[in-house]
This record gives sequence, C-alpha cells and structure tokens, in this order.
Amino acid sequence: MMHAGSDMEDRIVSEKFRDFARMFEPERIAVIGVSAEGVGFGRGVLLALLSMNYSGKLYPVNPRGGTTAGLKIYESVDAIPGSIDLGIIAVPARQVPRAVEDCMNKGAAGVEILSAGFKETGTEEGNALEKKLCELAVKGIRIIGPNCFGLYNPKTGLTMLPGPDLSREPGPVGFISQSGGLAIDLAHVGKWRGIKFSTMVSIGNGADLRETELLEYFGSDPETQIIGMYIEGIDDGRKFFEVLKSVSSKKPVIIMKGGQSDTGRRAAMSHTASIGGNAEIWKSVINQCNAVPALDMKEIADLSLAFSSLPAGTYKGISVIGGGGAIGVASADVAASCGIGIPEFEKSLQDEILALLPRPGSSAKNPVDVANPRVPPEILKEVLIRSARNSAVDVQIIVQLLHHYKPVTFYAPGITVHDATPTAQFADAFSEAAAVTGKPVIAVVPDFKQGLDSLDIAEMLRDTRRRYTEKGIPVFDDIQGAIKSIKAVSDYYSRRRYRQLNFN
Amino acid sequence: MMHAGSDMEDRIVSEKFRDFARMFEPERIAVIGVSAEGVGFGRGVLLALLSMNYSGKLYPVNPRGGTTAGLKIYESVDAIPGSIDLGIIAVPARQVPRAVEDCMNKGAAGVEILSAGFKETGTEEGNALEKKLCELAVKGIRIIGPNCFGLYNPKTGLTMLPGPDLSREPGPVGFISQSGGLAIDLAHVGKWRGIKFSTMVSIGNGADLRETELLEYFGSDPETQIIGMYIEGIDDGRKFFEVLKSVSSKKPVIIMKGGQSDTGRRAAMSHTASIGGNAEIWKSVINQCNAVPALDMKEIADLSLAFSSLPAGTYKGISVIGGGGAIGVASADVAASCGIGIPEFEKSLQDEILALLPRPGSSAKNPVDVANPRVPPEILKEVLIRSARNSAVDVQIIVQLLHHYKPVTFYAPGITVHDATPTAQFADAFSEAAAVTGKPVIAVVPDFKQGLDSLDIAEMLRDTRRRYTEKGIPVFDDIQGAIKSIKAVSDYYSRRRYRQLNFN
Repeated sequence: MMHAGSDMEDRIVSEKFRDFARMFEPERIAVIGVSAEGVGFGRGVLLALLSMNYSGKLYPVNPRGGTTAGLKIYESVDAIPGSIDLGIIAVPARQVPRAVEDCMNKGAAGVEILSAGFKETGTEEGNALEKKLCELAVKGIRIIGPNCFGLYNPKTGLTMLPGPDLSREPGPVGFISQSGGLAIDLAHVGKWRGIKFSTMVSIGNGADLRETELLEYFGSDPETQIIGMYIEGIDDGRKFFEVLKSVSSKKPVIIMKGGQSDTGRRAAMSHTASIGGNAEIWKSVINQCNAVPALDMKEIADLSLAFSSLPAGTYKGISVIGGGGAIGVASADVAASCGIGIPEFEKSLQDEILALLPRPGSSAKNPVDVANPRVPPEILKEVLIRSARNSAVDVQIIVQLLHHYKPVTFYAPGITVHDATPTAQFADAFSEAAAVTGKPVIAVVPDFKQGLDSLDIAEMLRDTRRRYTEKGIPVFDDIQGAIKSIKAVSDYYSRRRYRQLNFN
Repeated sequence: MMHAGSDMEDRIVSEKFRDFARMFEPERIAVIGVSAEGVGFGRGVLLALLSMNYSGKLYPVNPRGGTTAGLKIYESVDAIPGSIDLGIIAVPARQVPRAVEDCMNKGAAGVEILSAGFKETGTEEGNALEKKLCELAVKGIRIIGPNCFGLYNPKTGLTMLPGPDLSREPGPVGFISQSGGLAIDLAHVGKWRGIKFSTMVSIGNGADLRETELLEYFGSDPETQIIGMYIEGIDDGRKFFEVLKSVSSKKPVIIMKGGQSDTGRRAAMSHTASIGGNAEIWKSVINQCNAVPALDMKEIADLSLAFSSLPAGTYKGISVIGGGGAIGVASADVAASCGIGIPEFEKSLQDEILALLPRPGSSAKNPVDVANPRVPPEILKEVLIRSARNSAVDVQIIVQLLHHYKPVTFYAPGITVHDATPTAQFADAFSEAAAVTGKPVIAVVPDFKQGLDSLDIAEMLRDTRRRYTEKGIPVFDDIQGAIKSIKAVSDYYSRRRYRQLNFN
C-alpha cells in the first residue's frame, strides 16, 4: 500500500485533511449516550447542538431507545440509517472502546470522546482503556479526547460542551486546547470581543489527535489565518518544533503553555496526563520558531483580537488619547517597558489639537489628555485625524472611561446612562478617523464600576464594545493588554520578515 | 513663638494633625463657585455632597446669590454666618487666590482647590498663580490641590469629584493620590470589593499638602491601618524616604509610581507638573523601606483587599480548590513564579477528599480539581476543612467559574441564573470553613461571560461578591491577583519582623 515519492506524500496529507474536514464540518452526527431526560454530557451536548441550530442531521443513541427533544433515540449506532461522519461519545469509560468501534463500522471519519476515566486518573484501568483507544485509532478512525469538551465549528453549528450559545459566525482563528474549560471560556470571550473562529478543538488527553498534527492542519487550512494553542504537554517535541517553525513562518501561532513549574506539571499530569517540559527550553522553542507566547486566557484573547484586527506590519509608535492624566502616564510607562514609542508631537500640532480641547486641564504632547471624560465624538475624531499626522504614529489608542457618563443621569431624571453615552457616534467617529488617516484605531474601554448599582453601566459598555467591534474598532479592557498586543503583532511580522530576508 | 524640646515638637505635630482632622472631617463647608443651574465643578460637588448625605453644614457661594438645591447661595464667603472648617474652591484659576484668602479669614483649617490652570499648564501665568498659593499656605491655611478632585471621607460623607455614590462605610485604608481619576475609580472599586477607606486625598499639583506630610499623617492616624499611594513625582526625596521607612515599619504602604519611563515622566509633567525620578532609584527606595509596590490600580485594589482581610502573618503555602484543570495548572505556575508553595497532599488526605468528589475527572493532589463547576456548597466546605489539615497550607483559595450555572437555565424554564446559583450557601460554607480551620479562605470568581446576553450572570456575580465580602471572604477577579497579593502580604510582614529582630 505504501508508495515512494513526494506526490504520494502530498496525496496522503490531503487525504488526512479530508478526514479532518469531515469531522470538523460533519453532516451526520451520532450522539452516543443520550438519556431521555436530564442534562448529562450526552443529552447536554445534543440540546446544545439543537440550540446552536446545527446544520446537519443528529442521531441520538441509547440502548433504551425512546425519544428526546423531538428526536428518535436509536438503540445502537448500527441502527442509524446510512453512514455517519462524526460520533460524539458520552458513555462511561469502559463502554467507550465499543462505541468507537461502532462508529468506525458506521464509516465515521472520527469521534470525540467527552467521557473521562482514562489515563488522567493515573489508574491501571484508565491507562489500559486509553491504550485500547490508541489501538483503535491505528485501525482507521481519528479520536479527539478522551476527557475533552469536543469540537466547535461555527460554520456548521457543531458545538462543544457546554456551549448552547456560541457564535455562528466563522472567522480566522483556529484554536487547539488541552483544556476544555479554557476553550469554552475563550469561545464565549471571542463572541463578545469579535474574535471569530474557524474551528476549535479541545483535545483533552490527546490519545490520538494532538497538538502537532492539528497545528499542521490549521497551518494548511485556508480558512485559518491565526492559530491559538493551550498546551500542557507535548507528545513529540522534535516534530512539534519543526511544525511550529514551519507554520509560524506563514501564520502567527499564539501559545499559552501550562505546567511550566514543578507544581504546574503535577497539576497538568492530573488534568490531562501531560508531561510538560522545562520552562527554559520552552522559551527557547518559542523564540526560535517566532511563536507568540501568551500568559493566560486573557492574553490569548487580546492577541487573537490584535492579530485579527491589525493589518500585517510593523508598529513602532503610537498615540494615546484619553481623559485622565494618570492613564496617559500609565500608557507611557507600559509602552516604554515593552519598547513601543509614544512620539512627542511637534509644537504646531500640539497647538492645533489643544485648540479643539477644553482648557485648562488638557495636554497635547502625546499622550493627549483630553481633560474631560465626556469630550464629544466629533472632537475626538478631529483629534485622531490630527494626531495621525505625526509620521512616527503607526496606531492610535483611544482610552475611554465611559462610566463617567453615569453622573449625568443623577441630575437629569429619565435619562439612562445608555441614552447619555453617544456610543454609536463614537463608533462612527473612530472608524471614520481610521479610514481617513489609514492608521488603525484601537479602543481601551475599562469596566471599573462593577457594583450591583452599575448594571446599567455594564449594559452600556457591552453595547459599546459590540458597536465598536462591528465598525472594525477592536476593544481592549486595559491599556496593558492593548499596548502589549500591538507590540506582539509588530514583533511577529518584523521577525518573520527578517527571517525571510535572511534565510530564504 | 518657637520653643525647644521634644514635648513642644509633639504638641506642634499634634496641632498640625488637629488641622488635618478639621479638614478631613469638617463640620462646616463653604463651596465657592456654585452656579444656580448646571453641573459645573462647583454645583457638581455640592450635589454630590447632598447625594452622599454629608453630615455637616453646606454654604454655597456665588456673587450672584440666589438658591440652588434648596440651599441659599451666599454672595461672599464673608457673608456666611460663623466660621468654616473647609473651603471647596471651584472658581477660575485667577480668582482662586482671593477665594483662599477669604477662607483663611473665615477661620478655615484648609481648602481644596478643584480648579485647574496652574503649574500643570506650563505657562508663566499658571506658575505665578501656583506660587501665590504657596505664599498663602505659609500664612496659615492648608491647601489641597490645585487641579485635584478633593477629599473623600466616608465617616462624614465628604466626597470627591465626581462621587455622589461612594460608600459611607469607613475603614482601614488611607489613600493619597496625585491622580484624581485614579482615586475616584479606586473609591468605586473599593465600594464593591469591600475595601473601606478612612480618608482619601487627591492632591493634584500638590502646591502645599503633598505625599510626605500626608503619609506621616496617615502613619499616625489610629483609624488608618493600611496606606495606599499613587505618586507621579516626589517633592523632597530625602524626607520622603525617611517618612516612608518609618511609617512602613508600622503599617503597610502600597505605592504605585507613575512616570517611571521618559515618556511617562513627560506625561506626568503635563498631568500634575511632577518631576519623577529614575526607575532604579525608585526600586531601591521601595526595597529599603519595605514598601509594597503596585503596578496599576487593579493591583492597588487587590493589595488593599488582601491587607484588609488577611491577618498579619507569613503565608508560605496555599491550597487551590476549583473546577477546571487548566485553572489548577495556571495557579500552580503563578504560585511557583512568585515563590508560594502548593504542597502536595499526603495520599490518605487525597483519598479522603476524592471520596467527596464526582468521579472520574477529579483530582486531589493539590491543586484540587473538583471536576465539576457546580459542586454543591456543603461538599466544597468539607473539601476546604480537609485540605486545611495539611500543615503547610496557610491560606486556601477557592476558584469558582459560576457562569457555568447559566446552562442550567437553558433547560429549566422559569429558573434564573441567580436562582440556580447557591450564592448565599457558598458564602456560609466558605466562612464556616475558615472559622472551623482557622485558615483564611479567599475566593477567585472570574467574570468571563461579558456579552449583552449575560447581564444576568453579571448581576449574579456582583451579588456573589457582595455576599462573600459580607461574610469576610475576599473576592478576587483572577488567580494572579489573589496569589500575588498573598505573597505581598506575607513578604511585608516577614520582612518587617526580620528588620525588627535585627535592627531594633
């Protein structure tokens, strides 16, 4: 069956990826282990798929039969009419190998195993069951998991646990995660921050499909332009290094590595049976491959957003425009600490900007302190247009403490904070400024007022984020996140360019 | 008038502090520059004082006279019957020196000047006006500002701009800030995180009253147990160093230093006319004085909360209990990076804890992965009680991803996420566990689901924070903040003890 030659290798690769596509965008799914009532894993994922309006056909399976949520429950996988593309398995660990075999016999390209009770338990039985899964995978079915939250594919509505409310809008970010919890949280964060995913894979213990092969897949997937990863341990370091280096030369790969400390490794062992490596080696791998390191989920989200919204390029200087002097000072300190410049504006430009702003209290050296947290949208637009004239400014950051619109409502009965805040006009002003100047505008909109009496502010801020995002203005929660992300994007592209010039 | 001898010095010091007390807890306030309508600074602060139910008497002043908000407006300060303790000045910069003189003649201990247009403008006129203020201060009135947001004192209801809705509950944290914006934001954050303030002073340009003298005051104020500072520049480095060293030996002093970079210093110059120092020197000052450095407002809040809620002591080891393996892994990595131990539990203790938890999926080595984000309160209480038995555990952290109660509502019509989440029972369980074991319990309750469709989760989380806080369980937003704060508290007390043993 084996042939030599690179043509054949190409064909094998593309065939492998055809299987991936069948799993990630399945037309026919068997959900194995669905009870007629309750919200166990099996019925939970079935209801989530229905809630997401999954585009294909669903076949619940349970030996007891019956119906649930208006669907017939099949007594066995074999009883399903026709073939299936994907099996979602949520039966007790001991019954899992049999369910995998059933799916294989039914022509499935792969299965996702939500059940736990395998290698991560550290028991003999768990290890033996996981070994059995590996043997089945070799026979011709791809396995995601066990001990995972499954797959999320916005295009088809295939959703992971417990995700009945994820976005159906596909986008450029592919995500591979050894933690299901982190994956589902990121999927939610992405929904409201405008980070759109191609496919998200929670690999759990990674008995078969793991980080390296999936990274290779996303590297070649035309719908994926940015790759994110949460990794606790790596199966084959050598191969991973090669694939990461190759993929990173084409697409940014954002990686959070859990378990870099001794205790972290112990926790990772209990979590997904992963064996992590040394922190120093890891750092060197990241550097050599030009991968983009992330410290936590928030950083993965910040970086995914920055890579999704900033054009490929080098960003050396920024302007920071906002009300509140301490924010300007903090921005300057953060920028300096990560090597981003905040060029001081020439005197004539300062005067032009100052003429637009409330006096006294404002300052236009850059950072620009607009002195009042309620400067109108049309003024901020003009400030942005003028600030962009400084040739050392590559990106502009606008910082808004919008909770300062709340006091207006104390003195104007019947006006809500939502009414008082010109959110839509800000969104237009910033996107117009970006269009006119050709320099991206990023918004930082912190959410400081988190009391029970400020739910109206929370609602206004969430609506603001939605509107800005729709107009192409990415929104960050804090200055640190915004500036560090700009720096990471800039570093990635400038290093990639340098390497291309020097090594190719 | 001057006498020698230490008794006299004590009397002078206490007299100075008597003036401070009159300013910070005034019984009679003149608000100078109050228009009959609108929400300018003057009328804004008057309305805020009324909204806060300020306990003393208010005398609005404006040459035009009239009434506002049911109060007579006096045509001059002189026309106010009797004396005043504090003048709040919100007239244009050129009229400020005259207003200060008027307050002095009326017997005021001090004034706060909200008006801008002084040294921070960098103009000749601004500099001259500020010099004039310094000359007046020498004549016997204390000045806060100019270009500041004023004073906040929960006990009396004296409030800063724009704070009509701050807490009236006094507490142990004194705060000195060169940024009014940062101060008012921290006051709000404190309200919902249970950080209670003695007095907060926004010093703005600090023409007269500044960081060093206020630090000395808070150092000797029996109501202040923890001191926080946001500083851009220091007036007298030598004196500040001595006072900081002395005060830090009695009370923790948390300091955020803005303007440590060149650009940051430029921004600070425009903000509050401050001249900052070198970052290396600053770091050395912090170390030598055993002050507690903070990077941003969130860290000031985290540290204030930790110092307010943890008993003075050394905290070397923690347990981390939560649902979601990646959180355990991340906790372990953060703890390792800052030198906090997560002791591995002995096998018998692991077995005892595992017997309480859902299987498979859970792990009890420490971090304890409870496998399910909806483990009931009574089980978590038992896990906390058992985990505390390990003698290397000094504090316990419970991590809760409470948004996972939302899916319950998808399948149970009529049930809200608030109904579904046993918040009150969790609060009881954790505080009982802390009482039984004598080891503090800290909660980490992240707010990941920030969409417009998750305002119900926001409400539930805010209520959770309120209930936990009321029961003495401090709540942090993220693991990093919780663990780093524990470490900072531990370091402060162990260094203080070491210095006392070695130098006294």
